[in-house]
Amino acid sequence: MASKKNDVYDTIIIGAGPAGMTAAIYAVRYKLKTLVISKDVGGVANLAHKIENWPGITSITGIELMQSFKKHVEALGVKILQDEVVKLASGFEVVTSGGKKFKSKTLILALGTVRRKLNVPGEDEFIGRGVSYCTTCDGAMFKNKTVCVVGGSNSAAMAALLLAEYAKKVYIIYRKEALRADPILIERIAKNKKIEVIYNAEITKILGMKFVEKIILNNSKELPMEGVFIEIGGIPSTDLAKEIGVKLDEHNSIIADANMNTNVPGVFAAGDITNTFLDQVVTACGDGAKAAYSAFNHLKK
Amino acid sequence: MASKKNDVYDTIIIGAGPAGMTAAIYAVRYKLKTLVISKDVGGVANLAHKIENWPGITSITGIELMQSFKKHVEALGVKILQDEVVKLASGFEVVTSGGKKFKSKTLILALGTVRRKLNVPGEDEFIGRGVSYCTTCDGAMFKNKTVCVVGGSNSAAMAALLLAEYAKKVYIIYRKEALRADPILIERIAKNKKIEVIYNAEITKILGMKFVEKIILNNSKELPMEGVFIEIGGIPSTDLAKEIGVKLDEHNSIIADANMNTNVPGVFAAGDITNTFLDQVVTACGDGAKAAYSAFNHLKK
Repeated sequence: MASKKNDVYDTIIIGAGPAGMTAAIYAVRYKLKTLVISKDVGGVANLAHKIENWPGITSITGIELMQSFKKHVEALGVKILQDEVVKLASGFEVVTSGGKKFKSKTLILALGTVRRKLNVPGEDEFIGRGVSYCTTCDGAMFKNKTVCVVGGSNSAAMAALLLAEYAKKVYIIYRKEALRADPILIERIAKNKKIEVIYNAEITKILGMKFVEKIILNNSKELPMEGVFIEIGGIPSTDLAKEIGVKLDEHNSIIADANMNTNVPGVFAAGDITNTFLDQVVTACGDGAKAAYSAFNHLKK
Repeated sequence: MASKKNDVYDTIIIGAGPAGMTAAIYAVRYKLKTLVISKDVGGVANLAHKIENWPGITSITGIELMQSFKKHVEALGVKILQDEVVKLASGFEVVTSGGKKFKSKTLILALGTVRRKLNVPGEDEFIGRGVSYCTTCDGAMFKNKTVCVVGGSNSAAMAALLLAEYAKKVYIIYRKEALRADPILIERIAKNKKIEVIYNAEITKILGMKFVEKIILNNSKELPMEGVFIEIGGIPSTDLAKEIGVKLDEHNSIIADANMNTNVPGVFAAGDITNTFLDQVVTACGDGAKAAYSAFNHLKK
């Protein structure tokens, strides 16, 4: 029946971060009947309090940049359905937690990552009471307090620099001997008198009464602490990908080729969910465009 | 001598289009001593009169977008030397037409393409007198005139749509049976009453007195014509790459892997000069960031 046929999308993009939204912008260019489904708009890019390397804009918050993407997508007439996909089946069938069902000829998986946890006692207990996974969201509440960032990556470094604008003291607790953030950030940290890096250390316990009061390190040392910001990266959101047989690498990332093809015909992937070697907004966008073009080429066949 | 050592760059980026300028933005993040050398700023992106798929901006001219990139690069303290590289040697040595010599530990080749010519009688003779390779630059001068665009790609389609805003009649002359532009553009062309597509046709001669007056097609048909806009793609600017042994594919494009490595250690490439399957501003930017990251990783070794 005609009405049924109309319900089939050319492509459903799952995820509305930089990769998914750019894929949507390109899918429109290719006149694909397109739907974007995502729990949130912006993904982990929303957590960046300062993006200084999106070409053409010297400095912008992640949320502002992602909102400009959203407006662009919506101006092109593509709907971003804020819902969570809970089931994927070959064909392709998409089921959301809101109970909606869709059919699509192709899929673009752009689900990004979810934040990795420390998995230590006290972590879950004190979420929202000193433990945070979003410095941008929560940093300003720690004015004149003593806080720590766990991790050694770019996002840990950026978090420490932001916290130093509010807190009286910022520790970076990192399990390795040297931070692996970009040199420009390492230099800024070295120059910042509020920030102290504790290398070769891990938190084993977070303690307190109502709020976080101290942390215990693996050398048994105790540190008085009011805020613990956990910035130890993300786990690719690949549970759905597995359901339809998409191959993952040893880090649980989708294996995508240079044109964003996965091993499953009609399924493409882009952004942090893939095995790309550089997780940046601009690289996710470039790969999102490529994924849409590959979906278009697949449909032309 | 210390002064000599200071003259060695960590990376020299050749080309200042989207790929080269994004590579520069990232090279700064990695604290690389960076120089950009380019004949012009913006590359072929400058020729786009309307870019509707740069994420976050619904519509902007190519020149405006490229100027925003230039400001960003310069705000980060990187110099864009407007000069032409005329010689490359291993090591790496870079010589410009202005007689300047530089040394660099790595190179990022982002030279893009130069416009392809028809190579027919009258083409060179009438450049600037009816023959143009830049619709954005010259289109507005053809108000109420009869013009043609040669080509069937996205840029040919965009050129025809722009010309239709000025000219009284726009022919698209394409040697194949169907345009290969994005469906959204093909639809706009079909709806535009000023535009007529002549398929399976090639121009064999451009004739006139002082200005272009007519064209002759390969079926010997003559068409009165006042403007001829040639939009048949570009040839990768790979002459310099060849001088240092960089491998090219059958289209004369640099063969780059997913991380923008070429076959020559220390030499990276990004943008239209490479064998990428989608030549867009956003894909060139993503790949430019990857090239800078690969240069940084190479230098860390």
